[in-house]
Amino acid sequence: MLPEKVLTLARDANFAAFTTLLAGGQPQTHVMWVDADDDHVLINTELHRQKYKNVERDPRVTVAVMAAGNPYDFVEVRGRVTEVVTGDAARAHIDALSQKYTGGPYANAIQSERVILRITPDKVVGR
Amino acid sequence: MLPEKVLTLARDANFAAFTTLLAGGQPQTHVMWVDADDDHVLINTELHRQKYKNVERDPRVTVAVMAAGNPYDFVEVRGRVTEVVTGDAARAHIDALSQKYTGGPYANAIQSERVILRITPDKVVGR
Repeated sequence: MLPEKVLTLARDANFAAFTTLLAGGQPQTHVMWVDADDDHVLINTELHRQKYKNVERDPRVTVAVMAAGNPYDFVEVRGRVTEVVTGDAARAHIDALSQKYTGGPYANAIQSERVILRITPDKVVGR
Repeated sequence: MLPEKVLTLARDANFAAFTTLLAGGQPQTHVMWVDADDDHVLINTELHRQKYKNVERDPRVTVAVMAAGNPYDFVEVRGRVTEVVTGDAARAHIDALSQKYTGGPYANAIQSERVILRITPDKVVGR
């Protein structure tokens, strides 16, 4: 079970700084929507994205989830992508995320295929 | 010279997700104050912090600077810490940062010694 602080921050409409490792190890960071199930932080991306290629090569990622309107209030989750979900479940999940953040279904073009990255935490650092 | 977008975002009172590499390569991300001179992104920390130990071992860092109130508007700077500034200059810089973000001088206790990390960009990714 994720710590309550992570669950709360990741399930509310807050943004996350999602960091993956490029070939060679330089970090790549994007600011993204985020979600959580009981045990994993969830990031929804697409198969053709660099960040997906990064986690295929090296599953180690770090997610800093920041409270909207109070950047001093954040939690850092260091972990690994331990499962990848594609297909209808990943498509439905991006619509659910869009509802949370915009109030409507996902309106952007999908260029390849949506994918959910399930992140198992190794260490959680709260401020 | 840094791109205009980086200068603007880093000099206004915006926050940055600052990522360093732990021993072994797992990313560590903290949400922090940020600044820029003409050629470098600047992060002010203390000598005893894990993030400083990280950059002593591996100078590769990534900084995502986010516009306050609009997390869709961010810029990612991938680079290396190429200079470390300590002493009076680093102490004065944390007061200047505090003025920018809080309107007053730095009020927190300094546990070791302030240090400015000067980050030379290798790649800038704007959204």
